[in-house]
Amino acid sequence: MGMICIQTDRNGIDNKMNNRIALLRDFMQKQNLQAFIVPSTDAHISEYIPDHWASRQWLSGFTGSAGTVVVTLKKAGLWTDSRYFLQASDELSGSEILLFKDRLPDTICMADWLKSELKGNDRVGIDGNVYQAKDALKLKNDLEKVKITLVADFDPFETIWDDRPALPKNPIRIHPVEYAGESASAKIERVLTEVKKKGAQAVWISTLDTIAWLFNIRGTDVPYNPVAIAHAFISHYERILFTDRDKLTEKIAESLKNEGIQVVDYSQRRDFLSKPNNYTICIDSSKVSYAIYKTVTDTLSETGVEAWRTKSCIDIKSVADLLKSIKNEVETEGFRRVMIRDGVALTRFFRWLESNVISTPLPGSSALPSVTEYTIGLVLKEYRSQQQNFTGESFSTIAGHAASGAINHYRPNEENCLEIRPEGLLLIDSGGQYLDGTTDITRTIAMGPVTEEMKRDYTLVLKGMIALSRAIFPARTRGSQLDILARKAMWEHGINYGHGTGHGVGHYLNVHEGPHSIRQEENPVTLQKGMIVTSEPGIYRDHQYGIRTENMLLTTQAMKTDYGDFYQFETLTLCYIDTAPILKEMLTKDEIDWLNRYHQTVYEKLSPHLTPIENEWLKTKIKPVIYN
Amino acid sequence: MGMICIQTDRNGIDNKMNNRIALLRDFMQKQNLQAFIVPSTDAHISEYIPDHWASRQWLSGFTGSAGTVVVTLKKAGLWTDSRYFLQASDELSGSEILLFKDRLPDTICMADWLKSELKGNDRVGIDGNVYQAKDALKLKNDLEKVKITLVADFDPFETIWDDRPALPKNPIRIHPVEYAGESASAKIERVLTEVKKKGAQAVWISTLDTIAWLFNIRGTDVPYNPVAIAHAFISHYERILFTDRDKLTEKIAESLKNEGIQVVDYSQRRDFLSKPNNYTICIDSSKVSYAIYKTVTDTLSETGVEAWRTKSCIDIKSVADLLKSIKNEVETEGFRRVMIRDGVALTRFFRWLESNVISTPLPGSSALPSVTEYTIGLVLKEYRSQQQNFTGESFSTIAGHAASGAINHYRPNEENCLEIRPEGLLLIDSGGQYLDGTTDITRTIAMGPVTEEMKRDYTLVLKGMIALSRAIFPARTRGSQLDILARKAMWEHGINYGHGTGHGVGHYLNVHEGPHSIRQEENPVTLQKGMIVTSEPGIYRDHQYGIRTENMLLTTQAMKTDYGDFYQFETLTLCYIDTAPILKEMLTKDEIDWLNRYHQTVYEKLSPHLTPIENEWLKTKIKPVIYN
Repeated sequence: MGMICIQTDRNGIDNKMNNRIALLRDFMQKQNLQAFIVPSTDAHISEYIPDHWASRQWLSGFTGSAGTVVVTLKKAGLWTDSRYFLQASDELSGSEILLFKDRLPDTICMADWLKSELKGNDRVGIDGNVYQAKDALKLKNDLEKVKITLVADFDPFETIWDDRPALPKNPIRIHPVEYAGESASAKIERVLTEVKKKGAQAVWISTLDTIAWLFNIRGTDVPYNPVAIAHAFISHYERILFTDRDKLTEKIAESLKNEGIQVVDYSQRRDFLSKPNNYTICIDSSKVSYAIYKTVTDTLSETGVEAWRTKSCIDIKSVADLLKSIKNEVETEGFRRVMIRDGVALTRFFRWLESNVISTPLPGSSALPSVTEYTIGLVLKEYRSQQQNFTGESFSTIAGHAASGAINHYRPNEENCLEIRPEGLLLIDSGGQYLDGTTDITRTIAMGPVTEEMKRDYTLVLKGMIALSRAIFPARTRGSQLDILARKAMWEHGINYGHGTGHGVGHYLNVHEGPHSIRQEENPVTLQKGMIVTSEPGIYRDHQYGIRTENMLLTTQAMKTDYGDFYQFETLTLCYIDTAPILKEMLTKDEIDWLNRYHQTVYEKLSPHLTPIENEWLKTKIKPVIYN
Repeated sequence: MGMICIQTDRNGIDNKMNNRIALLRDFMQKQNLQAFIVPSTDAHISEYIPDHWASRQWLSGFTGSAGTVVVTLKKAGLWTDSRYFLQASDELSGSEILLFKDRLPDTICMADWLKSELKGNDRVGIDGNVYQAKDALKLKNDLEKVKITLVADFDPFETIWDDRPALPKNPIRIHPVEYAGESASAKIERVLTEVKKKGAQAVWISTLDTIAWLFNIRGTDVPYNPVAIAHAFISHYERILFTDRDKLTEKIAESLKNEGIQVVDYSQRRDFLSKPNNYTICIDSSKVSYAIYKTVTDTLSETGVEAWRTKSCIDIKSVADLLKSIKNEVETEGFRRVMIRDGVALTRFFRWLESNVISTPLPGSSALPSVTEYTIGLVLKEYRSQQQNFTGESFSTIAGHAASGAINHYRPNEENCLEIRPEGLLLIDSGGQYLDGTTDITRTIAMGPVTEEMKRDYTLVLKGMIALSRAIFPARTRGSQLDILARKAMWEHGINYGHGTGHGVGHYLNVHEGPHSIRQEENPVTLQKGMIVTSEPGIYRDHQYGIRTENMLLTTQAMKTDYGDFYQFETLTLCYIDTAPILKEMLTKDEIDWLNRYHQTVYEKLSPHLTPIENEWLKTKIKPVIYN
């Protein structure tokens, strides 16, 4: 079994997390619950969540964005995926929580583990307000087979979490059409047209970035994502934004009203949904909480609807999410402008890094202050913040030097991170939020001498990144069909990576956006013109180093032939790729040509915005690779 | 809409098919049916079917292996996929049946068409005995939404088809363990072990090749597939073969009995299933008829089972199909031996073809008898039949010269086919059944001068075939992830093909075998060591030519690394690939090396079995391509 017992010194040491688990167990016993599940998400099924809902982190100490904690009266476990295996193992250290490495063939899944730990007539508790409906329905069904009941009516953290942060009341602002490219009204009409095609008249949306996109609003309630806490309900008769009224100035409320949008207090959402209505409502059970889902579906069966209403709720993939993912021309032009600014900031940052680390005197001398994985994030943010329209980072910078690079989604912390030394590899994955676009870029650079194995791995990652960037494919191709392009070269060397290859990116919205993706797992959404996707293969050597190279790509038309439409990618990201660790004999002529052309474009677009000295430095970084 | 109205001269000409449709409509009116659906399959959900069940062909004249005819009181339509667009358009000509090009984005699907043609309270008839359960359940559910009823109790062809052929009563023979590599008992135990893992105690199998594999029997009831008409039911207490007792000699029956297999008459199958029992039965709704499925599930709800029996039927993908697809060492050794014999026959055939066509005097002179697409099949079969263990073809040879090559699954007929002329391309897709293996191979050869476009397309197909053959991929990879390897080169030229890239092949069984595949469409079955798969990309230019190159591949271990197990393919097929139409500047050095090495292997394996003159000829065909 893939269960990993973390080495802990449980005897004696007072562990904060274990105490919190004890509090949860007290609660469970009072409620006659034999297990309680704490997922990573919130009432809006978000990836990044406000502190108020970060109960899984509070309970376990695990800070990753994905992971579920299950507590029984005797045991506790965390299920998380390969991105977080090392981090979780680290962060759980000292707590009683066992780490279950999700999706490994030998790891027992959470439901099966529950079934093995519990017995018939036992009760499992969740907070239906923060549990994805689809997961809850599946789990409920699964547990019922062995007569275990899933009860969804508890928020234990309301009582056991003493200093629980309140929900944020940050102001909502309007995102101007100048950046959005389309009015809220026009977007709402397009969503309703799609909803109608599905045979429905209304749609419920709990997804914060989708609501922000749809209503052209932005907020600061969630770290890194410029969104506001809200739900939405739209039909041909109503356009309702459920949110805290305190978040809106009169001017903003007026502006929303002009788009026909009515504001109703957040607390009214379930009352509204419980009322009988004559709509067939589209709802996406993977994007709403179990509590919302139950409110919609229970109402439908309890309100004594007329006989002609054979359907009243359609559970389908969010049509608004799909529309949001297809960027309009104003948005794509925004992305192109933002990439120049982001590229300028990155160029300055990398130049600073080189002069502050690679030029550092050897240890013992004391010329320059030390640069650490943590300070890198501060400096990079500072360079970005000098750029127009920058409003913050799109996620916490991942700067992983040497062995830290092997930890996917590593977040260096100030007290406990590596000093950057002039040797080995440094992986930096970072991104910015600008009013006219969101960026996400990874570069791995040689800080000094690197081994032959590092070079080989670096070149394999680059080959994968280039192969996906150069793809030409017919309309109606799914990301899972393209995924192999990024992996093929490394597979031939017996190497693979445990994360997806690409994700959508919002337009001044979330850095991770669906519904499309490029990954090994099947996802039926096809790539469409205007969709943005990252290309980010990687190679990770535990306790040694990590390599990832990531660009953002825009799906565009390549050609139309007797065989239909064919698409290609336009590379949006503008930042040099370190050529020092390349083994050029492993690259084909086409790959070298691509790299040289890319560097030419980077220089052409960035140089007008850089100083002569910066340009001279950049020129040394983009010197053409010569094909022998 | 993608509906194509076939040009017909309906006024005046008495059309045989239209008369048959009229007979069906009489039947429908008597039974108060407003539509009737005739699928392409039979009581065993077979691809190749005995004449008795070929009612769709009898009714429509369409001879393709896949296609469904729907007749309403006023209209009639055929839904078929891109393999058969040209053929169907041809064969339907003169009948009233409209062609619907399935899976094209604008084509209305059959269910939606029915809903648009019929109204509430109408009744749609099918013969539940020959209709796939999964399809029927989906259709029933779909039609019920608009209050149309699906009624499954009719076999109109029993009355309207005058000279309907009887079901074959051909003898069953034992397939010796010497070829099969494993006894029936051992296979049955393995299947039951898998069934147990699913929480069941028994399994029902209607699939003819699976039954043949499981019980180590073979027959001749179905063209090209060495199978016998039968159903099977196995549990830890019973191993029952439902088949016509006349098919078994006493010796064969005795031999089955020694493996614990009891023979029950075919006609008893539903009575047996209707009886109450205490089993949880595995059944695959995509592999049994609706009649069988209903018999199992209806029984379960009607027999008043004890309360502890919460599950009694599990609808899952056939576990036996998966085990069958993973060949044992005796089977793979058989395949390797068979490929030598098949390669020898093919080499002799291609040499004959060259000397009889390419050397043909120009028209006007009368030196050699003409070679046609039809005679090619006869000659090729003759060469194969000179080989040891050959028992027949694995499918009807597709020999498509010039424009015929563009018709996927083209079956030349004697009266109406092309003479092979010393110019352009000739596509030959053929295969043999041998006691120790089944073959499937396509070669496209230049019969004389070819255009630059033909050469480019030929080279793109070859690049795709080679890319898939050279794939290295981690364990748990699905075919849909690898499919792009065969298409990538042609996609870059805006070309694609509308069929899958690869299918499993039975061991002295069906030439098309699941459950794995290599195609664009998602199929969750992962490729496992021992699975056979074809690699057969193609390019088709309507009314001009078709190109396909196909080898059979065996999945084997490539390596085991820190990242897990990696697999690769061993090419099984042994037959030269025509180098004449290659544009070698389009091939990489690796591709040329692969081709030259392959040809070296072909020569090494075949030459000991060829005459010196044949070897000299083969040497001219496998002259190394030189990389500049």
